[in-house]
Amino acid sequence: MTDTAFYYEDTICAPATPAGGAISVIRISGAKAIGIAGSLFTPKSGKSLAQRAAGTVAFGDISDAEGETLDEVLVTLFRAPHSYTGEDSVEISCHGSAYIVSRLLQSLIAKGCRMARPGEFTQRAFLNGKMDLSRAEAVADLIASTSAASHRVALKQMRGQFSEELAALRDKLLHLTTLLELELDFSDHEDLEFADRAQLQDITEEIRAKLSRLASSFRLGNAIKNGTPVAIVGDTNAGKSTLLNTLLGEEKAIVSDVHGTTRDAIEDTVNIGGTLFRFIDTAGIRQSDDKVEQIGISRTFKKLEEAEIVLWVIDSTDWQKSLRLKSEILPLCAGKSLLLLFNKSDLIGLNDLARPTAPNGTNVPQAAAAMLSAFADISAEHLFITAQASSSCAPVVSYLEKAAAQTATATQNDIIITNERHYAAILSALADLDRVSSGLRDGLPGDLISQDLRSVLFHLAEITGGAITSDEVLHSVFKSFCIGK
Amino acid sequence: MTDTAFYYEDTICAPATPAGGAISVIRISGAKAIGIAGSLFTPKSGKSLAQRAAGTVAFGDISDAEGETLDEVLVTLFRAPHSYTGEDSVEISCHGSAYIVSRLLQSLIAKGCRMARPGEFTQRAFLNGKMDLSRAEAVADLIASTSAASHRVALKQMRGQFSEELAALRDKLLHLTTLLELELDFSDHEDLEFADRAQLQDITEEIRAKLSRLASSFRLGNAIKNGTPVAIVGDTNAGKSTLLNTLLGEEKAIVSDVHGTTRDAIEDTVNIGGTLFRFIDTAGIRQSDDKVEQIGISRTFKKLEEAEIVLWVIDSTDWQKSLRLKSEILPLCAGKSLLLLFNKSDLIGLNDLARPTAPNGTNVPQAAAAMLSAFADISAEHLFITAQASSSCAPVVSYLEKAAAQTATATQNDIIITNERHYAAILSALADLDRVSSGLRDGLPGDLISQDLRSVLFHLAEITGGAITSDEVLHSVFKSFCIGK
Repeated sequence: MTDTAFYYEDTICAPATPAGGAISVIRISGAKAIGIAGSLFTPKSGKSLAQRAAGTVAFGDISDAEGETLDEVLVTLFRAPHSYTGEDSVEISCHGSAYIVSRLLQSLIAKGCRMARPGEFTQRAFLNGKMDLSRAEAVADLIASTSAASHRVALKQMRGQFSEELAALRDKLLHLTTLLELELDFSDHEDLEFADRAQLQDITEEIRAKLSRLASSFRLGNAIKNGTPVAIVGDTNAGKSTLLNTLLGEEKAIVSDVHGTTRDAIEDTVNIGGTLFRFIDTAGIRQSDDKVEQIGISRTFKKLEEAEIVLWVIDSTDWQKSLRLKSEILPLCAGKSLLLLFNKSDLIGLNDLARPTAPNGTNVPQAAAAMLSAFADISAEHLFITAQASSSCAPVVSYLEKAAAQTATATQNDIIITNERHYAAILSALADLDRVSSGLRDGLPGDLISQDLRSVLFHLAEITGGAITSDEVLHSVFKSFCIGK
Repeated sequence: MTDTAFYYEDTICAPATPAGGAISVIRISGAKAIGIAGSLFTPKSGKSLAQRAAGTVAFGDISDAEGETLDEVLVTLFRAPHSYTGEDSVEISCHGSAYIVSRLLQSLIAKGCRMARPGEFTQRAFLNGKMDLSRAEAVADLIASTSAASHRVALKQMRGQFSEELAALRDKLLHLTTLLELELDFSDHEDLEFADRAQLQDITEEIRAKLSRLASSFRLGNAIKNGTPVAIVGDTNAGKSTLLNTLLGEEKAIVSDVHGTTRDAIEDTVNIGGTLFRFIDTAGIRQSDDKVEQIGISRTFKKLEEAEIVLWVIDSTDWQKSLRLKSEILPLCAGKSLLLLFNKSDLIGLNDLARPTAPNGTNVPQAAAAMLSAFADISAEHLFITAQASSSCAPVVSYLEKAAAQTATATQNDIIITNERHYAAILSALADLDRVSSGLRDGLPGDLISQDLRSVLFHLAEITGGAITSDEVLHSVFKSFCIGK
């Protein structure tokens, strides 16, 4: 008996809902599911559980293993293979009392069930051929989805669109491999080439383009799943933490008047217009002798590299000292959206340009002009803000929403990779495909090329689970699931 | 249109499970439930929702109000009157994502549902005659049940056993009233008495005995629902907090060596052998000039009055000073279970009576004999303990379990009142019944007695909801429910 067969023999049970609601749902799946549930369930009327039709709901009493009534429940019946797991399954919907749920689970276990491991219901669905691995993984993503985009990507993957795209690519590759391997069967005829090398090269390039697109979608996919990374950078005391708090709408970072307060990078996500943003509050950039602060500053530059969007906060009352940062920040912003935010603009009267003299006596249009011209060499949009006033930060939110709209459009039409395991498999497939390509170009014999093609096929099959036989891999896929799924 | 009719017109929806599980269940109830759910649901195969049979489950896609697919779901159909609420109802079981649940609720609302108020599904069940009020209230108790006893009492009440007992009493009362009122119709014949006054007095007494038993069960019912109150009293620094921590198995009260540390009464519940105990840690009893501590001490005496069980902790190394407490504690312990706990018994070698000399040099049997004889006038069990050692506290747990066994027996056979509203109604009924009784004894005319009997009937009907017409009362009953129930 293999380790895998183990899964099919047990009947498993688990709560599918957390404690604390009006009702709780307990799931049971396996060959003995209906028998075990039926031994504890007495319908108010009609047939016994075992005699009922699949896809029906029965109302009645559930008792513990000693026969004492526990609750009045609804029991839903599913019969193999027409269930989530592909096995006989029962869902018991009882009153949402932790006491009842725990007694009921104990009773089911006393009757021969065992507690399911995290994700084991979905794992059985995969092992019973109800869904491939990438679709099973999408179930966990769907449950964890917190934004329109992450929900859409997960749903699409669960419904098999990613699997279908992969299947189409595999069909093409398989055709290619078959042609090459056919030549090997006729290897006596040295000149015989069933497969036109130029045509093979074309198909290889086509597949490589598609896989490259999938691989590069991972950056976006990761942003969708974990939030588009937004770095807030700038001098110490420029108001970065204050801006973050205003954007998050709550006190997540400690704000103080002491320079260099924010030493650790704090990350927080917020859903703006259906898109998830992951804000990165960073240490202020300045020369510092403080060891801990130096670590924070070097982390700032690292965070900046990861970001898709950079918000550079500049203190309008002390903008001259930020000029030196141009050489440090700008080289890291290539390919990112950069927005200059002139903070504390109220203090120099910039919020009220009709009044030409600022509270500090400066002539406002002149001061503003000097500041803007000092940063005019940077090709980026700019805004005047007062970081603690959410009304003044509304244009920042609009800017982020605009960036989000692009993301949303991409997710509507394309297949996006969000899973690191898939990304790794596609990178491996691409490396093999590179060897196929250069092999064709260099006129390598068909059997060598065919070997690399087989490897590409293997890596693509890893994604849908067709090539996965190791329990270890399956375990690592399903361990992140919640209990009851 | 009355306020009540309002409930029947709307179709309501609410999540029936909390966020964070593998699945979430959303409930819809009302005339348009099937139509609204059907407008968002596309089954994978077979008939549309409206054409399906009641008590069946359909698998398919659910979309938002704009038609974008949200999730793959199971939809269970119930048709009036065969549902929890007695109305057409639908339960949608979707993936447990807060995002999906919130989008789905928004979509249902866009299609014409409104969010249900707390307990509104059960309230509709009551208004539609599916269950009386005391059974509806038991649903909330059942969900909140945390021990075998509270679960059993709530289940019994939900299944209508309390209602049946009340109905039997009402039938008898109604018979009595009818006989008396029949006399009034023949009031010309002054001497005519259909109802034998002696027999009426017997029946009245019988009913009063039953109502008194129900009323007195409330003390037990309250203990079952909120925990049997156990007061831990004794001198400061006797080890009361340490004992509580050991019994609770975790650090809930701060223990220190400074006398008078525990100023506030801390309450904590623990389930021992299926019974809930509510432990009351109290301020040490001593003369104190500290205002805050004086308040704590007076609270101790109040808690002691409420308790069913009193654990009096005595410092074995300093037992003489506790003698003065006899006069303060004992008068308050009448009718309660009192257990003397000689703590720190290891320090004077009481845990090892084979070794006749204690670590402090005292001759142990002699010291123990002196201590025991000093407290011999108290008729209570006693134990030697070391409060911080859970093994040494095992006999205390056994003592509590023994007390619990009595409770458990009572709940298995009798009907127990746990609800303050029911208790108040029964007290009112008893007061009326007293007037009936004295009226019969004093030979009052039948019409006066009949009036009091009608009032008794009214108060009993209040419990099951037969006499409740005020929305205010209904609101106060159902507001303690959770959303989705």
